[in-house]
Amino acid sequence: MIQQPTDVVLRVLRACICGSDLWAYRGESARQPGQRIGHEFLGIVEEAGSEVNGFAVGDLVVAPFVWSDGTCAHCAEGLTTSCPQGGFWGSVGSDGGQGEAVRVPFADGTLVRLPAAAASDDHLLTALLALSDVLGTGHHAAVGAGVKRGSTVAVVGDGAVGLCGVMAAKRLGAERIIALGRHRVRTDIARDFGATDVVAERGDAAVEAVRELLGGEGAQAVIEAVGTEQSMRTAVGITRDGGSIGYVGVPHGSGTGLDLGIMFDRNIALRGGVAPVRTYIPELLPDVLSGTIDPSPVFDLTVGLDEVPAGYRAMDERTALKVLIKP
Amino acid sequence: MIQQPTDVVLRVLRACICGSDLWAYRGESARQPGQRIGHEFLGIVEEAGSEVNGFAVGDLVVAPFVWSDGTCAHCAEGLTTSCPQGGFWGSVGSDGGQGEAVRVPFADGTLVRLPAAAASDDHLLTALLALSDVLGTGHHAAVGAGVKRGSTVAVVGDGAVGLCGVMAAKRLGAERIIALGRHRVRTDIARDFGATDVVAERGDAAVEAVRELLGGEGAQAVIEAVGTEQSMRTAVGITRDGGSIGYVGVPHGSGTGLDLGIMFDRNIALRGGVAPVRTYIPELLPDVLSGTIDPSPVFDLTVGLDEVPAGYRAMDERTALKVLIKP
Repeated sequence: MIQQPTDVVLRVLRACICGSDLWAYRGESARQPGQRIGHEFLGIVEEAGSEVNGFAVGDLVVAPFVWSDGTCAHCAEGLTTSCPQGGFWGSVGSDGGQGEAVRVPFADGTLVRLPAAAASDDHLLTALLALSDVLGTGHHAAVGAGVKRGSTVAVVGDGAVGLCGVMAAKRLGAERIIALGRHRVRTDIARDFGATDVVAERGDAAVEAVRELLGGEGAQAVIEAVGTEQSMRTAVGITRDGGSIGYVGVPHGSGTGLDLGIMFDRNIALRGGVAPVRTYIPELLPDVLSGTIDPSPVFDLTVGLDEVPAGYRAMDERTALKVLIKP
Repeated sequence: MIQQPTDVVLRVLRACICGSDLWAYRGESARQPGQRIGHEFLGIVEEAGSEVNGFAVGDLVVAPFVWSDGTCAHCAEGLTTSCPQGGFWGSVGSDGGQGEAVRVPFADGTLVRLPAAAASDDHLLTALLALSDVLGTGHHAAVGAGVKRGSTVAVVGDGAVGLCGVMAAKRLGAERIIALGRHRVRTDIARDFGATDVVAERGDAAVEAVRELLGGEGAQAVIEAVGTEQSMRTAVGITRDGGSIGYVGVPHGSGTGLDLGIMFDRNIALRGGVAPVRTYIPELLPDVLSGTIDPSPVFDLTVGLDEVPAGYRAMDERTALKVLIKP
């Protein structure tokens, strides 16, 4: 339980499984025996260290997917993911969200309080869970892509982050949003979230289809939410000259998929990376609370703690988009 | 001579040799017999087509390194380098600046008038020539790197563009400017242009030296003005988390030099490409005319048209930084 006076221990009310957790499930990323997992959760403070000022036992709080001290130069600049004292839930020696309780380091810097009433609102609680990662990550991509009022946006990736990218782009005032994806269930959610067009093609055909929709040009703002070489290549291909790619798909594969010659000739910018979700929660929270945006549809399967393995299986087999865990 | 009614023919008063011209000189880029070369020049209008409205015979004008129609959507957005009717001086079928005269397509969209009095001011004329490429390109890099009042900037590349990047960063209000370079003549110019620090190391040692100067962090804004894998790797290494690289070095080599994993973890943005110099001339011109900035020191050798081969040799052997041509 409490190890440092700045710790909080919270009882997990909601957690979920991330696409990136599947790398551990599939054995693609190295894990140690007993290593915890799960970086998205919200819950109730059960215990607070003596130096915790912002939270008390009983508070409902949401955690971003990295903890951060809230006091360093990077945290002050809003780049909480670069906090030298920060860390990622489920890394060796830390707790993970897919469990009964989590020890939260630097609680004052890390956690954000939620209204107590939300604890008894099942639907709202699910929507709020998206603040721990996917909604803030989608928002980061939209910001990186330079989405503003009236923008034309294209979104590569129809996972939970891509869908939240659609939602974030809509929220920032995008006029046209093209979602790339071919799973009907997902593209239906994309439309609900604000996509005006759906492109089912992949690779070169997708580039052609997007450009046909846009009169031969690419989109000013492109969200890349996959992280493979092919998705990056597609992103470059569908960006308008002078436009920006906001990328949040964790890069995997040996190459970058970036053709720097093309990007140079066409002045295509690349911005993004691991999302400083903690910084975005205060901006996004009011809209979730008011129902202006509702990311809860990205969770399409709910399991208990005992059924977590089945949840991983469902996401691995793509029968579930994103699995909600109710301990 | 005039081919289209929108053409102008101008007599070249000043031209110069670009580092990228050396690729043709060295046989690294394919050329056709008789193909012209030289993309930086200013001169006097000798003849104007019937549909040219903005210029008359006798006008002193400067040309950016690509021509553009000035009327398309990309030109309207300021990205003149993406004009579908645009082109690069010295490409097959067009004239080049290293000659007596140049036919300028889309003169109204391409050229910018200079004060007539400048024609008799040798020093000013040389400074104004930098508007055709290197000053605007350095400015593009500084803009891409996000330089603003108070920024900490690092500049990779001590060629004419890198030096103009220093000047542009200073002009935009940068507080600290670290120039990377080890040629004393060039780093002295960098200091004249506004560099506060010079780092002579290369590669990993350069990264270490910059970070030592900045208390362990990288620079918020990094200008990349070389275009090799190593220079890009250095640029990534010296960028502060959350910072931007403004790149204008024409990419050459098979790889990108970009480690996307590092860029992702540290939220490093990449912006830049071929500079829409035409768009920047109206902003930069008044400061050159007033003497607020004087890029003329980047020209350190002057030759006549007959001596152009010697000029190439001098740049190839690095005995000259940038060669001015007076036809």
